[in-house]
Amino acid sequence: MKKIAVITSGGDAPGMNACIRAIVITAWQHDVEVIGFRHGFRGIVDDLNQPLHPDDMRLVSQRGGTFLKSSRYPEFREVARAKAAAKILDKHNISALLVIGGDGSFQGADHLAKYWQGQVIGIPGTIDNDLAGTDTTIGFSTAVDTAMEAIDRVRETAEAMARVFLIEVMGRHAGFIGLHAAIASSAEAMLLPELEPQPKLAEIADAILQARASFPDSSYVVVVSENLWPGGVAGLSTSLSKATGVTCHPCPLGHIQRGGRPNAQDRILAMQLGHAAVHAVLDGKSRIMIGLEQEHVVEVPLHLTFERDKPLDPRLVQLQLGLQGVNFASKKGTKTA
Amino acid sequence: MKKIAVITSGGDAPGMNACIRAIVITAWQHDVEVIGFRHGFRGIVDDLNQPLHPDDMRLVSQRGGTFLKSSRYPEFREVARAKAAAKILDKHNISALLVIGGDGSFQGADHLAKYWQGQVIGIPGTIDNDLAGTDTTIGFSTAVDTAMEAIDRVRETAEAMARVFLIEVMGRHAGFIGLHAAIASSAEAMLLPELEPQPKLAEIADAILQARASFPDSSYVVVVSENLWPGGVAGLSTSLSKATGVTCHPCPLGHIQRGGRPNAQDRILAMQLGHAAVHAVLDGKSRIMIGLEQEHVVEVPLHLTFERDKPLDPRLVQLQLGLQGVNFASKKGTKTA
Amino acid sequence: MKKIAVITSGGDAPGMNACIRAIVITAWQHDVEVIGFRHGFRGIVDDLNQPLHPDDMRLVSQRGGTFLKSSRYPEFREVARAKAAAKILDKHNISALLVIGGDGSFQGADHLAKYWQGQVIGIPGTIDNDLAGTDTTIGFSTAVDTAMEAIDRVRETAEAMARVFLIEVMGRHAGFIGLHAAIASSAEAMLLPELEPQPKLAEIADAILQARASFPDSSYVVVVSENLWPGGVAGLSTSLSKATGVTCHPCPLGHIQRGGRPNAQDRILAMQLGHAAVHAVLDGKSRIMIGLEQEHVVEVPLHLTFERDKPLDPRLVQLQLGLQGVNFASKKGTKTA
Amino acid sequence: MKKIAVITSGGDAPGMNACIRAIVITAWQHDVEVIGFRHGFRGIVDDLNQPLHPDDMRLVSQRGGTFLKSSRYPEFREVARAKAAAKILDKHNISALLVIGGDGSFQGADHLAKYWQGQVIGIPGTIDNDLAGTDTTIGFSTAVDTAMEAIDRVRETAEAMARVFLIEVMGRHAGFIGLHAAIASSAEAMLLPELEPQPKLAEIADAILQARASFPDSSYVVVVSENLWPGGVAGLSTSLSKATGVTCHPCPLGHIQRGGRPNAQDRILAMQLGHAAVHAVLDGKSRIMIGLEQEHVVEVPLHLTFERDKPLDPRLVQLQLGLQGVNFASKKGTKTA
Repeated sequence: MKKIAVITSGGDAPGMNACIRAIVITAWQHDVEVIGFRHGFRGIVDDLNQPLHPDDMRLVSQRGGTFLKSSRYPEFREVARAKAAAKILDKHNISALLVIGGDGSFQGADHLAKYWQGQVIGIPGTIDNDLAGTDTTIGFSTAVDTAMEAIDRVRETAEAMARVFLIEVMGRHAGFIGLHAAIASSAEAMLLPELEPQPKLAEIADAILQARASFPDSSYVVVVSENLWPGGVAGLSTSLSKATGVTCHPCPLGHIQRGGRPNAQDRILAMQLGHAAVHAVLDGKSRIMIGLEQEHVVEVPLHLTFERDKPLDPRLVQLQLGLQGVNFASKKGTKTA
Repeated sequence: MKKIAVITSGGDAPGMNACIRAIVITAWQHDVEVIGFRHGFRGIVDDLNQPLHPDDMRLVSQRGGTFLKSSRYPEFREVARAKAAAKILDKHNISALLVIGGDGSFQGADHLAKYWQGQVIGIPGTIDNDLAGTDTTIGFSTAVDTAMEAIDRVRETAEAMARVFLIEVMGRHAGFIGLHAAIASSAEAMLLPELEPQPKLAEIADAILQARASFPDSSYVVVVSENLWPGGVAGLSTSLSKATGVTCHPCPLGHIQRGGRPNAQDRILAMQLGHAAVHAVLDGKSRIMIGLEQEHVVEVPLHLTFERDKPLDPRLVQLQLGLQGVNFASKKGTKTA
Repeated sequence: MKKIAVITSGGDAPGMNACIRAIVITAWQHDVEVIGFRHGFRGIVDDLNQPLHPDDMRLVSQRGGTFLKSSRYPEFREVARAKAAAKILDKHNISALLVIGGDGSFQGADHLAKYWQGQVIGIPGTIDNDLAGTDTTIGFSTAVDTAMEAIDRVRETAEAMARVFLIEVMGRHAGFIGLHAAIASSAEAMLLPELEPQPKLAEIADAILQARASFPDSSYVVVVSENLWPGGVAGLSTSLSKATGVTCHPCPLGHIQRGGRPNAQDRILAMQLGHAAVHAVLDGKSRIMIGLEQEHVVEVPLHLTFERDKPLDPRLVQLQLGLQGVNFASKKGTKTA
Repeated sequence: MKKIAVITSGGDAPGMNACIRAIVITAWQHDVEVIGFRHGFRGIVDDLNQPLHPDDMRLVSQRGGTFLKSSRYPEFREVARAKAAAKILDKHNISALLVIGGDGSFQGADHLAKYWQGQVIGIPGTIDNDLAGTDTTIGFSTAVDTAMEAIDRVRETAEAMARVFLIEVMGRHAGFIGLHAAIASSAEAMLLPELEPQPKLAEIADAILQARASFPDSSYVVVVSENLWPGGVAGLSTSLSKATGVTCHPCPLGHIQRGGRPNAQDRILAMQLGHAAVHAVLDGKSRIMIGLEQEHVVEVPLHLTFERDKPLDPRLVQLQLGLQGVNFASKKGTKTA
């Protein structure tokens, strides 16, 4: 009887549990046994294994995080660790490993594949959506909803006090959450790593002053990607307050963006991909990622997912630049395609 | 200066306000004036007009419902009413009418186009997702989230009391909400109008009894589309309770599925479509619907949207039939494609 | 070493898990062992016991429902069952039983106390809040929030379509959820079992017609307690539609009111009461309920909690009757104190 | 005809709109006219008045923030401004001013009362709950819910990654939000300004190390009040990471705590207090705050609300110290009463 293993790796993302559920049930229906290793690659090396049975999957999809637990494990780049993991997987007679994670995790999976004979399949699970080869990733949609709801809350104070807020959202080095949250929350401006050229401080300040002149009694919300501005939104607020004479308030959303019950879209996506991953195993595939492009499940060579850049959808960028109105950013292009 | 009108028609759907925002801002940026008529087609006939300006659109996207208000207005099928509406539109020098609504509304729009020279553009706004020519409709995603969250709540009581619940979801005569909510909530079974042949009572009863035998201490949730079973879930509960000897509890979700703040996906979709609709007006298009297929904005002849059937995605149907396990429905095909 | 048992009984209520957590940790800190019986009194009779340890309580408070499961068990009124339960409790050397539940459960507890020598302590856990001797019960606050949020959703459709909605809320035979939800949702009218005399159909119809005359373009929401009107809100809608000529839409909220993550107030209340219940055990108390009156933890003879009626707060009734404006109900008294 | 004015002042709080609704309807029912001034005391000085009519109050209670807008306005301490405000109020024939706000606002109100003959009534509206003379304030309950939900989200990541998180909550200089959020989220530790003596860094570090030894695979959440630790949770994280060798992650919740739809408790409280405030005006009262103590509406001399300290409920402090288990804080007393 075939036996596969599954791990969740890197930052947790809402929907990972639903993905595990689909994997376990689908595998079991094809007489394939499943075990999990807790805490990702570290858990393989340390042999933190646990059997996974369909009966235990009844009520996991509703929950955020990952019941298999995860970890960041940069040490896995060492050859010795990959070999150690291969040994553990062989000890358990594992013929395929499913890795739910982001680009660091897929690099780890690709690395492992050099020292292990089994099949290696990636499933995109990261709130950042920064993986080439798939339109979206498990957890991204929920993270955008969470960021948007948080901005909706801050908007109420901003509106009551007629304030400028600079709201920092996650995304590591990509503007996906920033772009989607900016559109969804009707932000007045956005600062994303992909905008090119990046607007200068003076331009942002001008846009704010112009808005204050037109709507002195209203809020002004700028969505800013993390890792973009030196000192984050705190630094940007200080600079902008000085430049404009208007107090700008920083608001980093932080870790709340990662948690929470997955929304329906993420649960459904997670189950589609988990189900397809088991079928890819049955078909003998390896070193691929299962993605979703234009509503169709696709298979992509694993290394392409982290070697290629994934651009923002230029139509959505233009949409927001247009809707946010007369604005510094509206005159600029973006390196989106 | 060009002037366009916009209405929301039929059942309200979360995201309609975001769509109006995108229409008004985009139009204004192209020097096109916008007015709205309250309460849909009835509001045109009764000339319930109100000017719409970008400054008033700052904070509408966050809200559910439609600030333009809507109505069901079957009387509009009369030729006299269409002619009356045409007269009002001409009186205001309207050159294009944008109709945000579902298939009844598009039939109304198509009807009007026979008696009016202006451009008529449809934008799919209905929680039911039962419009051909677009993968999704404004409000559908939020409605699925709302249904799923409600089922998650009921699941807790079901699990605490080890109960069988039959949960009725909306969809008029289509199973989209039912299918997506069933997957997202890990339902044990689903009854949708598109399943073919429809499972018989005895089969549903068997599946329940089989599950009770395996998991006597657990919940069992069946998602049932409205308008499918005679007497709705109340009738089905009575029949199933008799057939199984297990008390089955009916739970119609009702109108809560329609309301609520739109999720990010619906807000973004709504703005994409509203923005594209204005461009379609500028391009001289008429009698089309603006839809989204495989992530691309498309234009579809208006009459096709209600003349053709829209099938469920057969891959999602199979996914749920597989995941819900050994089950009456799993042995059956579906008329999905 | 002392040993106590805990059950959750009757309808589940959000916060029950937080209560169990407080009981287990507090007991353990006083070197008292705790076991649970699943499914309430039925679980005692059937000896469905499970040990409860503080380490397992780390993450239960966040969840709705009851992980100890519950049941309705009218058969427990039989003397034989009470004696059987006593035997099981003695077999496990239990010296005290904590019962988290509503009035049926407390009658069961009082019944058991006649045939068992151990201490019996009740903790009020029911969304209905219909227990004398405590201002509020575990789950009530969350249920009111849930009902209110559902009404907020329906309000959006009601407002978009200018409709009359009759919304049925839970409460068994008490109007607590109805009253609080009516105030919180700014309902235009409420029908509760405690209003006296009950308004007649003609009066309700008049109030609706009067409101339609003043606000023809607006919503009208009536909050109706379950078990009050023959045929529920469906029956009432039919009658009112006939009487007014205005279509009135029924909307029973149903079981969604029972589930969901407990709000902060219910979690804190649950832990306060659970903690105090263990101290009552240590103090040798029996046949009491631990309640909260005017922000203070109190002890009440168990039988009084179900023998006495609990009135609505007349000040809140008057508040809502005043705020809902010129209205049939505003001219009437209530049997509230 | 009598005429009263209402303002919202200082930080906005969920429920302020419901309070205005109750004031306007209640006043109108007693033939008293109401006007609002936008942006608090600044709006009086600048005469930003707007009439408030019951018809406009139909749908405001559901919304967060304050539609009357607010502001911080330290300049109002100047005698000249108070006199200017008095002149404006007299110009409008205002006989009473209702101030919904926190302690800074009440100091402003008390200051104004020295230079103005009208009645001045305070209504406690602040998420911080740091006003003596009332058990709770409008917005506090919702803010605790919001903080708790955010911590629930972070808990999922913390649990998946087995991490220590230091979560900073609001409260200005009071630990009310911190205490309630810590209990409600089953936090492992809390740092509040009222704990005495404050735990030392070494003690906190010890508690963390002890917990990591017992539960190496689990999360550890510390709730920390703002303005308590130098450098906030960022500074504390650096120090604790060094002291323990375990990476501690800071997570300031920030402005999201202030916004959001008010929960039922805050809406009901807001309406009770607004209604009572109008009756206090009719009874000729002045320089009082309307509060709620032990479920009863009370009147308190305005100056006492900000001159006296308001202690935390020592029973709740002890409850959390007990439940968070063997812990540095559990050996200490608190200056709570």
